[in-house]
This record gives sequence, C-alpha cells and structure tokens, in this order.
Amino acid sequence: FDKDLYEGNELAGVVTGLAWTPVGGDILFIESNVSKGKGQLTLSGQLGDVMKESAITALSYLKSHADDLGIDYKVFSNYDLHIHVPQGAVPKDGPSAGITILTSIASIYTQRKVKNNLAMTGEITLRGKVLPVGGIKEKILAAKRANIKEIIMCYKNRKDVEEIGEQYTKGLTFHYVDYVSEVLEIALLNQKVKKPIQFEFKSEEPKS
Amino acid sequence: FDKDLYEGNELAGVVTGLAWTPVGGDILFIESNVSKGKGQLTLSGQLGDVMKESAITALSYLKSHADDLGIDYKVFSNYDLHIHVPQGAVPKDGPSAGITILTSIASIYTQRKVKNNLAMTGEITLRGKVLPVGGIKEKILAAKRANIKEIIMCYKNRKDVEEIGEQYTKGLTFHYVDYVSEVLEIALLNQKVKKPIQFEFKSEEPKS
Amino acid sequence: FDKDLYEGNELAGVVTGLAWTPVGGDILFIESNVSKGKGQLTLSGQLGDVMKESAITALSYLKSHADDLGIDYKVFSNYDLHIHVPQGAVPKDGPSAGITILTSIASIYTQRKVKNNLAMTGEITLRGKVLPVGGIKEKILAAKRANIKEIIMCYKNRKDVEEIGEQYTKGLTFHYVDYVSEVLEIALLNQKVKKPIQFEFKSEEPKS
Amino acid sequence: FDKDLYEGNELAGVVTGLAWTPVGGDILFIESNVSKGKGQLTLSGQLGDVMKESAITALSYLKSHADDLGIDYKVFSNYDLHIHVPQGAVPKDGPSAGITILTSIASIYTQRKVKNNLAMTGEITLRGKVLPVGGIKEKILAAKRANIKEIIMCYKNRKDVEEIGEQYTKGLTFHYVDYVSEVLEIALLNQKVKKPIQFEFKSEEPKS
Amino acid sequence: FDKDLYEGNELAGVVTGLAWTPVGGDILFIESNVSKGKGQLTLSGQLGDVMKESAITALSYLKSHADDLGIDYKVFSNYDLHIHVPQGAVPKDGPSAGITILTSIASIYTQRKVKNNLAMTGEITLRGKVLPVGGIKEKILAAKRANIKEIIMCYKNRKDVEEIGEQYTKGLTFHYVDYVSEVLEIALLNQKVKKPIQFEFKSEEPKS
Amino acid sequence: FDKDLYEGNELAGVVTGLAWTPVGGDILFIESNVSKGKGQLTLSGQLGDVMKESAITALSYLKSHADDLGIDYKVFSNYDLHIHVPQGAVPKDGPSAGITILTSIASIYTQRKVKNNLAMTGEITLRGKVLPVGGIKEKILAAKRANIKEIIMCYKNRKDVEEIGEQYTKGLTFHYVDYVSEVLEIALLNQKVKKPIQFEFKSEEPKS
Ligand SMILES: [Ca+2]
Ligand SMILES: [Ca+2]
Ligand SMILES: [Ca+2]
Ligand SMILES: [Ca+2]
Ligand SMILES: [Ca+2]
Ligand SMILES: [Ca+2]
Ligand SMILES: [Ca+2]
Ligand SMILES: [Ca+2]
Ligand SMILES: [Ca+2]
Ligand SMILES: [Ca+2]
Ligand SMILES: [Ca+2]
Ligand SMILES: [Ca+2]
Repeated sequence: FDKDLYEGNELAGVVTGLAWTPVGGDILFIESNVSKGKGQLTLSGQLGDVMKESAITALSYLKSHADDLGIDYKVFSNYDLHIHVPQGAVPKDGPSAGITILTSIASIYTQRKVKNNLAMTGEITLRGKVLPVGGIKEKILAAKRANIKEIIMCYKNRKDVEEIGEQYTKGLTFHYVDYVSEVLEIALLNQKVKKPIQFEFKSEEPKS
Repeated sequence: FDKDLYEGNELAGVVTGLAWTPVGGDILFIESNVSKGKGQLTLSGQLGDVMKESAITALSYLKSHADDLGIDYKVFSNYDLHIHVPQGAVPKDGPSAGITILTSIASIYTQRKVKNNLAMTGEITLRGKVLPVGGIKEKILAAKRANIKEIIMCYKNRKDVEEIGEQYTKGLTFHYVDYVSEVLEIALLNQKVKKPIQFEFKSEEPKS
Repeated sequence: FDKDLYEGNELAGVVTGLAWTPVGGDILFIESNVSKGKGQLTLSGQLGDVMKESAITALSYLKSHADDLGIDYKVFSNYDLHIHVPQGAVPKDGPSAGITILTSIASIYTQRKVKNNLAMTGEITLRGKVLPVGGIKEKILAAKRANIKEIIMCYKNRKDVEEIGEQYTKGLTFHYVDYVSEVLEIALLNQKVKKPIQFEFKSEEPKS
Repeated sequence: FDKDLYEGNELAGVVTGLAWTPVGGDILFIESNVSKGKGQLTLSGQLGDVMKESAITALSYLKSHADDLGIDYKVFSNYDLHIHVPQGAVPKDGPSAGITILTSIASIYTQRKVKNNLAMTGEITLRGKVLPVGGIKEKILAAKRANIKEIIMCYKNRKDVEEIGEQYTKGLTFHYVDYVSEVLEIALLNQKVKKPIQFEFKSEEPKS
Repeated sequence: FDKDLYEGNELAGVVTGLAWTPVGGDILFIESNVSKGKGQLTLSGQLGDVMKESAITALSYLKSHADDLGIDYKVFSNYDLHIHVPQGAVPKDGPSAGITILTSIASIYTQRKVKNNLAMTGEITLRGKVLPVGGIKEKILAAKRANIKEIIMCYKNRKDVEEIGEQYTKGLTFHYVDYVSEVLEIALLNQKVKKPIQFEFKSEEPKS
Repeated sequence: FDKDLYEGNELAGVVTGLAWTPVGGDILFIESNVSKGKGQLTLSGQLGDVMKESAITALSYLKSHADDLGIDYKVFSNYDLHIHVPQGAVPKDGPSAGITILTSIASIYTQRKVKNNLAMTGEITLRGKVLPVGGIKEKILAAKRANIKEIIMCYKNRKDVEEIGEQYTKGLTFHYVDYVSEVLEIALLNQKVKKPIQFEFKSEEPKS
C-alpha cells in the first residue's frame, strides 16, 4: 500500500515526480506553499543535501526568470516559501527531482494549474539545462501503475526509454527536453487554480 | 504509572495524540503557547528531526489557511509560538503527531476549545492531506485505557481498525478523514476557552 | 565538602533545587540575572539538552502568564536573561529543575523574595502542569542535611515520600502540587528584595 | 556518456573549467546567476571546503576590483549571487576552479560574453595571482575531446604542457598567465550577451 | 622557558590568573580589549566550554552591577569586547579563571589599574559568589616563582593554603573572599591607567 | 617547486610570513583585501582554529589602536575584510602568523607599503605583546632561500637564532621585538602604495 496514485491537479504547487527506490520506482509529490513573510525558504521531508541544493537551484533559476513567467519579483521577499515532500519519515535525496521542484514553485507563484496526469524526472542546472537521471525503467513502471499519462525527462534519457519493451510504455506520452523553459511550457496550464492567492506587497522603497 | 489519562479541554492549545512506543501505545499531549514576540517558533520535548518537520509543516499549512479559520495573519509575526511535548526527558520522533500538532496550534491561534475526550494520530502534508500511520492497534488500546472516546485518523487506516477485535474498539467512535480541514472541523469547537487571549498587533506599515 | 548548604533568600532570582547524582542527592542553586538588552536568553553551567529545554519552557510559560504576576511584558524584550547553575564544571541534565527554574525567573522579573529554607523538584510543562520526578529519597536526605525546611514537589511523588521512614522526613514540610501556579504561590513572598531593580523600558511603538 | 562537450557562450555567467577525476579529466561548467536581493552568496553542487573558499576568494577579488571592470559596486548589495556546478550529485573539491569561478562571476556582473571554445584551470589568490594546479595532462586530453580550442592556465604549468606529446596538444592554443587580470582580459569579450540584465539599485543613503 | 613572570599593571584589562597544568602550576594572563561596535563578545585562546561559560557569566554579572562600578551601561551595546588568553595554541578550560576574567573586564570598562603583583584564582557564580577551586599548592608555587606578592581566592580554599609548608607561602599575602565584590575592591585601584579610553556613545532613543 | 620566492611589496595587504612544515620551512603570503560592506570578516585558506583566533586577535588589536595608525575607525564598519593564505588546498594552523596577519591588515587599512624583502614570525596577544614561536632554524633557512633580507621575531627567539651557524644567518638582518607596535614601526613604510584606496564612509548617526 506504499505505492501512491496520481492525485489530480486542483491545487497550485503540487507536482508529481518519479523516484527510484531500492524496492522499485514510485511517484512522489512535491508540495509548495507560500505565506506572508520575508522570503524565508523552508525545506522538509527528510531531504538530503543534494536534493536541498536542487531546490535552492530551482528557486534561484525561477527568481532570475520571474519576468518571463509574469511573476512580480516582490513576491520573493514578501512571502515565505515552504517545499515539502511526503512522506515525512522517508529520507529522500538525489538531483532527479530538480525539474519537479521548479514546476512546483513556478505553479505556486503563478497560481497556474499543472497539466493533468503528468509526471517528470530530471536534474536542473542553474542556467536552465535539464540533465539526464537514472532509474528510468523503474520510474516508468511506477508512473504507469500510478495512472500517469505523460512524462517529461531529458532528451538524453530517450535511449533509456527506447530500451524498454513497448508493452511497458504503451499509453504513455514522453516529452524529451533540453531546457527547463520547455518543462514549464508543457507542465503549466494557462488556467489558474480555483480561488488563486492574490499576492499583496508592501510599498516599495523609492528608487534612484 | 507512566501511562497517562485524558486531562480535559479547558486550555487552548492542548491536544491529545496517540503514540507508539516499544512497550505499547500511550497518549501524549501536544502543548502550544503564544507570547508577544516577533514570530519565532520554539520546539521542545526532545523532538526528533521528523517530528520537528511535522510541526513546521503544520505551521506553514495553518499560515496559508489562516483566512479559512478567521485568524488574522498578523498574529504570526507579532507573537512567538512554542510547541512542547511532555515528558521532557523522553525522546520522541516520527510523523504521526502531525495532525495533533496542527490542531494544537489552530486552537491556540483561534482560542477555540478542543472537543472533549478526543485523540488523534496521522501524518500531515503541506497541501493538507492526512496520511496513514503505524501502530494503530497499540494506540487504540492506549486510547481506551486513557479514557478517550473519539479518535481521528486517516481513512487509509480504517482497515487497521477493522482488523482489531470489536471488544477493543467498543465505546470508541472513529473519524476517518482524508484532509486536515476535516480534522479541524471535528476537533475544534466553536466555543472559545475561558478568558481567551485578546491578540494585539502593532500598526501595519502602509501598503502600496 | 562538595555538599552545599542552604544559603538564604536575600537575592532575587536565586532558588534552591534538589538534584540526584550517582553519589547521592545534593542541593543546587538556580541563579537568574537580568541586564538591559534585547531579550536574549543565556544558559550556562554545562546544562544538557533536556535541562535547556526545561528553562526555555519555563520562560515561555512565564511570558504567557506575565499578567497574572504583574510583570510588564515589555521587560522580556528590553532586558536580557541569564540563567546559571553552579558549579560551572559539573555537567547537569534532566527535567527535574523545571519548577526551580520557573521560580527563579519569576523572582528576578518580579523582584520578589523567595520563601526561606525552601527547596523544590519537579518537571514543568508548557501548559503549567507539574510532573513527578525520580530520586526523591536521595533528594530528601540531601535537603535535610542542607538545612532545608520545606519542599515542593508533584502530588504524584507523594507516594515516594511516604515510602521513606519518618525519621528521615521529620522536621520537613512537604507541599504537593499539580500546577506551577501553586508553586509560585508558595515560593514567592509578597515582599520584594532590598534595592529591587527598577525596570525601565524604551517607548513603545504606536498600536493600531 | 558522462563526458561532456563544450556548450557555447550564449549565456552570461557560464564558463568551462577543467577537472581531474580518478577516472580521467573532464570539463565542468561553472554557472553563475543573480537575482534581486541583499547580496547573499549561495554555493551549490556538492562543493567541498576548498572549492567554497575559492569561490569566496574570487568574489572578494572581484568586489575590490569592480571599478576596473566597470561594475557598479552597488550590485553586490542589491543582488544575490548563486554559483552552481553541475552535476548536482557529484562531490567536487580543490582550488583549481578558482579562475573559472572568477570569470563566471565577472561575466554575470558585466553581462559580457565569454570567449568561445575556451576552458581554463588555475588557483586564484586574493591579491589576484594565478597559481599552478595538478592533473594538467588529463585535463588537456579532456579539453580536446570536449571540443575546446583555447586553454588558460598558470605560467608555472607550462612545463607540464610541454611534457605532453605534441599530438595531444595540436589544435589547442595555450594562454599562460600570472595574474587573474590577464585571465579576464583573454576570457571576457567586449560584446554583451543578448538581452543583458539591466541592474537596478535602490537609492543610496546620503554620504558625509 | 614556558614559565611566565609577572608583567606589570600598566595596561587596563590585563589580569594575572593562576593555572594548574599536568606539568605544574603556571600563571596566565587574561587580556580584555574593547573597540567601537555593537556589543559583540569574542573569546579566543583555545578556551573550552566551561571557561567560555565563566567568561559569559562574569560579563552578565558585570552588566547587572554596572552602576556599582560607575560604568555607563551604554558601553555594553556601543563597544565590542574581546577576551583573549595567551598562549594561543594551548587549550585551556575549567572554571577557575572566573574571578580573573571578571577583574579583567571590570578593569577595561572602568579603565582602572589592577593592583600590582597580584594574582587570583576562583570560580564565579552569576549571583556573585566565589567558589573554591583545585590545584592550590601548584598554583601558589607558580605564583611565587613568577614574582606574585598577593593572591585572592575563595575562603573555602584557606585550608588548602594552610596545608602547605610555610616556606612556600612566605612573602605571599592571601586574601580570602566569599563574594566577587570583595575581589574587585581588592584588585581594582582607584587610579586610572595612562591615556584611559574616553568612551563615546550614540544618542539614546527617547524613553517613555 | 613548492618552495616560494619573495614577491615584492607593490600591493597593500600582502606580507611575507615564515612557516614550519613537516618537510622543512617555507615562506607564506598573508593577503588582505577590503571591499565596501558592513564590517564582515572572512578568513580562507584552510586555516585551523588557532590561526583563525590569531587573525581575530590581530583585528581586535588593530581596531583598538586605530588612532595610533591614523585609521578612521569607521572603516571597520563600512568595509568588509578578507584575509586569505594561499595555497588554498594546504591546511595551515598555529599562532606564529599572528604578527604577519596584523601587519597585513594594518597595511590594507593604511594603504602603506610593507618594507621590501622582509619576513616575520611571532604570536600576537590581545594587549600587543609578541610571543616566541618554534621552528626558527627551518624558517630562517627558508627565508634565505626565498630571497628575504630582514626578519622580525620575538626577542625571546634570539637564542634560537644564535644557536644556528653564522653561515646560515649571514646576509640576514634580525629585528627582535617585544611589542607589536615595534613590528608595525619596522614593517610599514610611510610611503603609500600606488593608487591607494580612498575609503568612503556613510554619514554618521548623530552623537549625544
Ligand atoms: Ca510512496
Ligand atoms: Ca549528503
Ligand atoms: Ca506517558
Ligand atoms: Ca533524525
Ligand atoms: Ca554540590
Ligand atoms: Ca542530550
Ligand atoms: Ca561530466
Ligand atoms: Ca574539507
Ligand atoms: Ca606559560
Ligand atoms: Ca567541554
Ligand atoms: Ca609553498
Ligand atoms: Ca583545532
């Protein structure tokens, strides 16, 4: 019963990732949440160093590309961001949740919905490249079992997918990408979530 | 004599949880307390990393759902919050106190009473899901012995309850939930505690 | 010569506790001290984690019950608090100094004298309960030897006292309590110390 | 497939370094990124202590030579800087990326392009000297394989290059330098990247 | 040549202590120094935890007794304090330098000279008691060899002195004390050092 | 090739020290650098605890003797200071670089040149004494080999020099000192470096 199922896209900031574990693949949920504050970042879910650095890198990327997504940069200093990965007692690490974390925080700051039945796996770099990751076969099996229909991953992982028998990939659409901008274009719908947060900011200090 | 009994609901911020220990189940009390300050969070009671992250996640959830509970968000930056779990020398860990901690801090910030003779166990996620936890049998036995009448837990734990003989669950009402909003609806009475705190805030800085 | 004697109640913030050590019971002194500052808390005396959490819990309790003791809450942000437990080279830990620490800081902030020839032992919880502690027999022997006349402890420790022969408890008065409010009522005299500190505060920011 | 290829110079802040690993040389990318903030420095990519100190030293050097590069020093307190070295799960350490890091942050703050098909390796000191590093042979082989055409290193590493057979260095141009000012002169083009960041600053406090 | 000699009292903030080491007693110098700042405390000289807590306790005591010594409390928030104990590579620990540290910082803040050819050893408590310490015999031999003429210690150490043959204590004057106020009365001369620091403060914020 | 040579005195803040290593003496360079900031101190070069404390002690000494050197104390809170010791991957520790570090930061804050072909070794104390250090023979041999002409050290190290055969010390001038003020008088030329930094300060807050 430890194996999770896809859970819908009603909420901003919740994105489905793919994880490799010693007992097979699984999906996992990246949850992001904002509250009025001063721009503090909180990470939870027993995340290891590499995964924490992925989150920090994703946030830096988003901050420096805020304009492209129509995000007012003042949100970063007027709201706190919390990224959590259930289940809370299970240690998690590695770089492969990078693009999932980015999509999660892009969704929470834009309040845009995430495409339905979509999952993803891939390392993010600070300049916005998507790097290949391991465990593709197990991840695909887990995605299918969890009712995922579309998967985003690095173009360099295409060969790993093609090595798998077609019976396992049937019914799945694969999006191979090189840049995280492509990830966001695929994953973020133009439609906002119901009752989107109306971000409010303190007045700016005067500029010179 | 280490086994505790239910202790009433006169105070805001005190909620009864269920714990699994190597020598059987037990109830435990989550105590929350606020004092004028700048929004600092203090955790005590020899809490492990996972339990600390549960508390932080519960607080983030509450902050971003303050409106739903009629909580003025300014309380979070004008008061310090302390969460303590007696007994102070006993190490505690794990995610299963998540919804108990959330109820405790929701009670302290709303000053609403917690339902009488109620206990609960369940992991919280940042988007407000309740996840199943372990040790259900031992926890139920402990709850009964401690004079608990109603128990809240994740719907996915229902099968664990049904596996227990009826003689052990007789006299107990079970509330199975999927979302923490359901937990708060069951656990928080509309009635406030006696002499509720009247929260006071410094004047806001002007908004743009 | 390591065994200490009771040392009077001339100073605010000095309260006598009871300690269990591998070589028998002993009394110890909790010393609190305030100086103009910004509300920083300093703990010293080679205190372990559990004892530090006791002190933090005692301070939180006092802050949220300042009104009851006539303490102006502004003192907490305008003065630094230092709690020290001599002897500085002896490691100390455990929750049993909880109510002693609370009494010590209540005395320093109210400048009220502590009752003469009084000692105490008991864990504090955040909501103000007093919990039972161990080593009662050794602590009572040490208290008598140190010239203590009255002892405060948790009602649940009464049975530990009654198990001791009367010749050991003769001449000692025991106060059994359930709540820390009872501790303070017994321990704090209405009389202030000589030359009490006149707390001074910076002007408040305007309220809305 | 772990061996990377040169990836162009379209982006500011991305510079190619040369790394020695137990399984041979490789190129690596130093990525720098700025976002509005207060001057915080973030380092990621599982960097060891020595490599972190290299980055801090490079940043100090740049700050005190900002004028020489036409960088308004206010950028350092009005923007956060993030330096990341993919791949995120591979631990990296050592001083040899010093001049590569410097070039990366000089590029991001000036928005100038980095020379095409260029790589570099060398320790930086705070006063701006370039020191020799090890693993030259493996690094050169890796550079060639990765499509690098020009390499900057310390003059003292010249003898290491000359020890290598000409067939391995053919087609490569070597720049031997003593000072990091020479590195920047070679590596930074006058041409800015497309859509360069227009840095904006809060108004200065008045000077005396 | 590791054995030091008394070095005069020309400078404020330099006080001679007595140390026990595995190879016999020695004198040591506590050096205090202030510079304009915000009240930061720096400790150096490879001090262990217990010795650091002694210094912090001494500073707290001094702050809350500033009036008694004519010290303007504003000095504590307008100047940084550094306490150093040479030799920098020799680890030091224990509580016995407590009163020496107190005298050192009292001297630096009052700019009063320390009595000539004086040394001291004793633990300080927060309420201002002096506690006995060990190694008295070795310390006295070291003091004599170092040209010390007067020694301050706890009254409870008198018996340790009396156990030593008179030939070893001849020419030494012993001051036995119970309170640190007695230490300061003996140790601090009314005379200020040459060219005393003229402390300057920023203007106070208005009081209510 | 690991053995360095003297490198001139064109830059402020660069001073030559003498180091003992398991494979013989060597010279090392202390590099200091300032940039506009808030008075933060950064230390790099894999420095151990004792060496870091030396640097902190040197800075405290300089701050409290700023007037003597004509340094405006405002520089300490308006500029950040970075002290680096190449080579970045070589761990360094011990107190013997104390006076070298002091000279380095005195040079950077005064922008005065350091005497040519000069090296030094000696521990610094907070009150400004110079203490003797070890490894004198190896250090002198290294200094000679590195083209050093004058060496400053503690008067108490004179006997170590005199034990060395004259053929090794020929051509070297030794300056024996007791106080760091003597070090600075010898080491700092009145002449400023080329293009000295013109320190700029924010306006002061009004004084009372
Ligand atoms: Ca799962
Ligand atoms: Ca790790
Ligand atoms: Ca219990
Ligand atoms: Ca843990
Ligand atoms: Ca004792
Ligand atoms: Ca512990
Ligand atoms: Ca690679
Ligand atoms: Ca390291
Ligand atoms: Ca010595
Ligand atoms: Ca220790
Ligand atoms: Ca060298
Ligand atoms: Ca060390």
